[in-house]
Amino acid sequence: MILDSHRITTEPYYCAAGNEIALFAAAYAARMPMMLKGPTGCGKTRFIEYMAWRLGKPLITVACHEDMTASDLVGRFLLDANGTVWHDGPLTRAVRHGAICYLDEIVEARQDTTVVIHPLADDRRVLPLEKTGELITAHPDFQLVISYNPGYQSVLKDLKESTKQRFAAMQFLYPDRALETAIVAHEAGIAEEDARRLVLIGEAARHLKGHGLDEGASTRMLIHAGQLIARGVALAAACQVALILPITDDPDLRDALTATVDACLR
Amino acid sequence: MILDSHRITTEPYYCAAGNEIALFAAAYAARMPMMLKGPTGCGKTRFIEYMAWRLGKPLITVACHEDMTASDLVGRFLLDANGTVWHDGPLTRAVRHGAICYLDEIVEARQDTTVVIHPLADDRRVLPLEKTGELITAHPDFQLVISYNPGYQSVLKDLKESTKQRFAAMQFLYPDRALETAIVAHEAGIAEEDARRLVLIGEAARHLKGHGLDEGASTRMLIHAGQLIARGVALAAACQVALILPITDDPDLRDALTATVDACLR
Amino acid sequence: MILDSHRITTEPYYCAAGNEIALFAAAYAARMPMMLKGPTGCGKTRFIEYMAWRLGKPLITVACHEDMTASDLVGRFLLDANGTVWHDGPLTRAVRHGAICYLDEIVEARQDTTVVIHPLADDRRVLPLEKTGELITAHPDFQLVISYNPGYQSVLKDLKESTKQRFAAMQFLYPDRALETAIVAHEAGIAEEDARRLVLIGEAARHLKGHGLDEGASTRMLIHAGQLIARGVALAAACQVALILPITDDPDLRDALTATVDACLR
Amino acid sequence: MILDSHRITTEPYYCAAGNEIALFAAAYAARMPMMLKGPTGCGKTRFIEYMAWRLGKPLITVACHEDMTASDLVGRFLLDANGTVWHDGPLTRAVRHGAICYLDEIVEARQDTTVVIHPLADDRRVLPLEKTGELITAHPDFQLVISYNPGYQSVLKDLKESTKQRFAAMQFLYPDRALETAIVAHEAGIAEEDARRLVLIGEAARHLKGHGLDEGASTRMLIHAGQLIARGVALAAACQVALILPITDDPDLRDALTATVDACLR
Amino acid sequence: MILDSHRITTEPYYCAAGNEIALFAAAYAARMPMMLKGPTGCGKTRFIEYMAWRLGKPLITVACHEDMTASDLVGRFLLDANGTVWHDGPLTRAVRHGAICYLDEIVEARQDTTVVIHPLADDRRVLPLEKTGELITAHPDFQLVISYNPGYQSVLKDLKESTKQRFAAMQFLYPDRALETAIVAHEAGIAEEDARRLVLIGEAARHLKGHGLDEGASTRMLIHAGQLIARGVALAAACQVALILPITDDPDLRDALTATVDACLR
Amino acid sequence: MILDSHRITTEPYYCAAGNEIALFAAAYAARMPMMLKGPTGCGKTRFIEYMAWRLGKPLITVACHEDMTASDLVGRFLLDANGTVWHDGPLTRAVRHGAICYLDEIVEARQDTTVVIHPLADDRRVLPLEKTGELITAHPDFQLVISYNPGYQSVLKDLKESTKQRFAAMQFLYPDRALETAIVAHEAGIAEEDARRLVLIGEAARHLKGHGLDEGASTRMLIHAGQLIARGVALAAACQVALILPITDDPDLRDALTATVDACLR
Repeated sequence: MILDSHRITTEPYYCAAGNEIALFAAAYAARMPMMLKGPTGCGKTRFIEYMAWRLGKPLITVACHEDMTASDLVGRFLLDANGTVWHDGPLTRAVRHGAICYLDEIVEARQDTTVVIHPLADDRRVLPLEKTGELITAHPDFQLVISYNPGYQSVLKDLKESTKQRFAAMQFLYPDRALETAIVAHEAGIAEEDARRLVLIGEAARHLKGHGLDEGASTRMLIHAGQLIARGVALAAACQVALILPITDDPDLRDALTATVDACLR
Repeated sequence: MILDSHRITTEPYYCAAGNEIALFAAAYAARMPMMLKGPTGCGKTRFIEYMAWRLGKPLITVACHEDMTASDLVGRFLLDANGTVWHDGPLTRAVRHGAICYLDEIVEARQDTTVVIHPLADDRRVLPLEKTGELITAHPDFQLVISYNPGYQSVLKDLKESTKQRFAAMQFLYPDRALETAIVAHEAGIAEEDARRLVLIGEAARHLKGHGLDEGASTRMLIHAGQLIARGVALAAACQVALILPITDDPDLRDALTATVDACLR
Repeated sequence: MILDSHRITTEPYYCAAGNEIALFAAAYAARMPMMLKGPTGCGKTRFIEYMAWRLGKPLITVACHEDMTASDLVGRFLLDANGTVWHDGPLTRAVRHGAICYLDEIVEARQDTTVVIHPLADDRRVLPLEKTGELITAHPDFQLVISYNPGYQSVLKDLKESTKQRFAAMQFLYPDRALETAIVAHEAGIAEEDARRLVLIGEAARHLKGHGLDEGASTRMLIHAGQLIARGVALAAACQVALILPITDDPDLRDALTATVDACLR
Repeated sequence: MILDSHRITTEPYYCAAGNEIALFAAAYAARMPMMLKGPTGCGKTRFIEYMAWRLGKPLITVACHEDMTASDLVGRFLLDANGTVWHDGPLTRAVRHGAICYLDEIVEARQDTTVVIHPLADDRRVLPLEKTGELITAHPDFQLVISYNPGYQSVLKDLKESTKQRFAAMQFLYPDRALETAIVAHEAGIAEEDARRLVLIGEAARHLKGHGLDEGASTRMLIHAGQLIARGVALAAACQVALILPITDDPDLRDALTATVDACLR
Repeated sequence: MILDSHRITTEPYYCAAGNEIALFAAAYAARMPMMLKGPTGCGKTRFIEYMAWRLGKPLITVACHEDMTASDLVGRFLLDANGTVWHDGPLTRAVRHGAICYLDEIVEARQDTTVVIHPLADDRRVLPLEKTGELITAHPDFQLVISYNPGYQSVLKDLKESTKQRFAAMQFLYPDRALETAIVAHEAGIAEEDARRLVLIGEAARHLKGHGLDEGASTRMLIHAGQLIARGVALAAACQVALILPITDDPDLRDALTATVDACLR
Repeated sequence: MILDSHRITTEPYYCAAGNEIALFAAAYAARMPMMLKGPTGCGKTRFIEYMAWRLGKPLITVACHEDMTASDLVGRFLLDANGTVWHDGPLTRAVRHGAICYLDEIVEARQDTTVVIHPLADDRRVLPLEKTGELITAHPDFQLVISYNPGYQSVLKDLKESTKQRFAAMQFLYPDRALETAIVAHEAGIAEEDARRLVLIGEAARHLKGHGLDEGASTRMLIHAGQLIARGVALAAACQVALILPITDDPDLRDALTATVDACLR
């Protein structure tokens, strides 16, 4: 089948923090367009992979960006030996053959990209291919999911009201201490004790958010530190490389973060 | 027939709020270019689908956006094995074969897109295809309809005076309480009582418009909440996911909206 | 003949307001480049159609816009089975075969579009096709006519002085009361009495220009109202749809306009 | 010969105002790059046509504009049945075959257009075709001439210092009263007496420059008025159409200009 | 093998300043995405070449810039005799065949370029080719490395938080006096004594950073001076040409730098 | 040989002002990337032509500009009868076959153009052709030379620090009085006495720089005046045409410059 390479065949590692699995399952049952909100690296992508596996549906993920055009999503004409031939884009493949289509950071894309999903995101569930004149009715399995990081957006760059109102939304946060410890230990392959220390450091770093830091350390960065530890790097050095140097160049903030790490190691 | 896939074969669900059906029928009889004004999700798209069904005419809908060019509407040359061949765009198909052409949120499009409709929107009713030199006289069944959301537009992005003056206009608002209750119950498949509660919540949310909310909850969002309820989600959780989380990230506004929901549930 | 579809075979309905017909005929005799000035919907397009019919010359009309390029006017290379072939644009067709070329709202076009007409708009009367190297001497019947709405232009977007000075100009205004009544009655197919009422309403609306209205009601909008009346819509409702809702979303202005209509109906 | 259509075979009508003919001939003898400065419609284009005729050289004129690219001047690859083939642009044709190349209003063009002429405008006299790798040494007859209207340019849009310094320059002004009368009479085909009146009106209008007028009436506009008079239009009406309506929409200025005309007619 | 020309076959000259070799080796063992931070010309590029040689992996370096598109990294369709054929870009070649891909000054690139690396820079390690529909799982040897100069970035142009957090980071500084002396002597082929003098001059110049200089003299510039000395240029002249004239046009700063050089030569 | 047309076969006229010939020869011996700094028309281009002749190497000159892309330098795919074929750009030809490549006014180019030279301007001396995947090691004769006019650059448009630091630099000024007199006499073919007068006028004009003049009269402009004198134009008229009219339109400055000329002629 055309979407076989987009099926997730082994269960992704996912620890639920609340009722999000049941809620999303109900939304999928109604094929309701969904928006996943939450900070970078808190697990939104992992969640949608887990749900695709659990629902047994193929998943097509598209990382959106400022220079993406509607054609990148919908498809385009390419020239071959017999002239121009239409090639479906990732969204069209999902619509036609029935996948969950996950548009990551949709707000980064140009407006033609966000408007092209409107007729898919209301009760019509159609995708007009303006360049071919075709009007595709979505496959019964198709669902549209987008992610959105509210901390990011400026007034100049936000979703249009008429886009937002087409989606229901779920809020994601960093996992609580026990859950995050289990995740870091599992993903980095380190001892619970080391993982617990990293999680405490991460929590401390997140408190500096707003005091010069755009965002604190994500779960993903804690896993990075853990992976270096698993390969023999000392915990303090691993925190420098994985948690502190990537997120700030301000000497005072670096000192504050280093002090935080030292305090947690004592 | 070339426009068969654009004919609406089953009656769309539409409850009239006033004399809009008779007015539009008179305008269609004169083939007058029409502008539908009103907020997001209040039913403009559904109305034009209903009128197309009632008048027995095909309907071609185009969602306009900032990066849309006149070529996306009118058509373009594509290369095949014998060289470049002209392909009609959606507007040209409507003009040539006689459909209602509905340009949704026309104000989002670039100016070449709005100017290209001028000779269709006065008594000439012609569409010059500048790239082919052809001058198409509109099919007798053709009518041009556009939508326009006055709440949106900035001074920088508005229709040109010479575009506006080519259209007659109709104003749409959210339906009144009884009508909206009937619509939500019908569309979500829930009990009247649940629908009535959602409508009350929606009305309360609309009062917050202007106090930090760009727009309140649309009828479409109330239907989303209803669909989740129909699949077993509790009313409070359904309102969070369908009404509150999508439209604001402000903690105070979220609290105010949650309090509104709680009050309506008591 | 190649321009046959651009010949106007039936006399357009036109009522002269002054000596404009004789003046334009003298200008055509000298093949002088002409600029028609005046507000939206006051009859400039109808006048040039009338003159083309009276002079027995084909008329090619181009609606200019921000994204129009010189190639859209002059022509371009297209690919067919034997390689690239030149296709004349509308201006080139008019120059080569002898038509009146009417560039509507030329000021909207990009500068390359306005500069391309310079050698046609002085005593050289040539059109250099830079892409083919051809230098076309204009057909003896060719004349260049542009329209220009002075109320519109900002400092940033105006014709270059070196363009303006190549044209002689004629000023158009809304017709006087008796003439406009005759036009509305004729075009909408309604009784003189109804037309007279609409004209009075239109005059009242024009007095609000400057008090929040960009432009008042044009003759075209009065005709719209008349056409709805001819199809059984009440005069007050017809004025709402055709005159008030299209031009303002300001509640106070809508009330003022509605009061104006009511006053005229009493 | 390839440039035959660019040879001027009949002597253009030109009345010298000073020593400009001898000066230009000396500059041509040194093949010095020349800049013609002066207001719109004062005769720069006619002068270069006259000199080309007098020197017996072909003349290639290019009207520059904001959207002109270096490729429009230099040439481009076009696709034909055997693949891409290079086509010389107007500048390259002049360089290769030996014409005077007149770039009208060069300052309007994009920078790539102005920089491309640098190696032609110093002692190297070469034109590198970057896209083909060819380095063309200019034909001995080739000369580069540009026009430049100092009244126009803003700080943002001016020639680069390194471009200006490659050119010697000549200043053009409107001709004096006697000379301008002769020109208007000759070009419009009217009596000396009528021409003298128009010239007096033109001089009066030029005095209003700076009092709201960007530029006064050019010689070209006086000729327009004369041509209408020659076709039977009254002098006052001809001045309205040819001199007043084209250059201002300000009612007070129009009144002042009309008063000026009336005074000259008394 | 397809990447043979990207293998480094002779050991690059590199003197370690600390534990950076071991740290990077641990990061490579985890295939962790790495960010190298530090000023221009301090040896980041040399370090990654050294590590690629030491780890025995091919290295593909891409100098990023403002006009680079995702296609420049990922690949594009090219037309040959049988139609369009896909050609891998440098990133895709590294991903498919297993190289270290070094994106130099990634922050200069457009957002589509930075977003395209996201799925490669988390635990998915996939590269979706949106234009072909292919989803490439990275070769086990692939690692992503980027460089980043914190001194440069403005608020307007910085990496997105969601990009930064995908990378662990290492900080590079100019080498200390002894090490830099050894490097300059080795690379320029001059005596230790001359190299020591240049290093002292370089240190003095770096102290002027912030007093009008954007950056002081880099190790690379000291090597330039040494190379001129090795070819017989006097030390003072070599410092003018290699250290002073390239970095400032301010007469006072030039004097201050010249005085610094003179002081070190005494 | 492919670069034969870029060899300079007759010795260019060049008078050294100091030790610049020896310095450049040492830099070429190290194949060091060089930056030539100095005002317009002071002889930078002539110097590099002279050095290319003296070193016996071919010279490829590229005039950079705002719209130049990396492809204009590096090369591009062109379509012929067998599909797309790669064509080397001027930089690639220099790199591959061993020429001095002189990028004139590099700062005018877009950033992709300046970044593309980075790997050529450090010890790697390679040029990656990203579009073909080829990595060209520079021919042993290749050297990169750029020019840079410090008087021009704004904060917005300057070379990046990481570009500047890759180059050693030489400063050029206008020649002193005796040398400039010799140059003007030689190039224009006039008597020493006339040349000396022009040089005195030029010096006086340069003192007005900063008092309203962007730059004073360059050596090139003095030669222009000389060439007109050699063809019989009077000295005062030649100075008007060659020195005054090209550089200012300000009446006061023109008067000041004319007075300067008159004083020197007395």
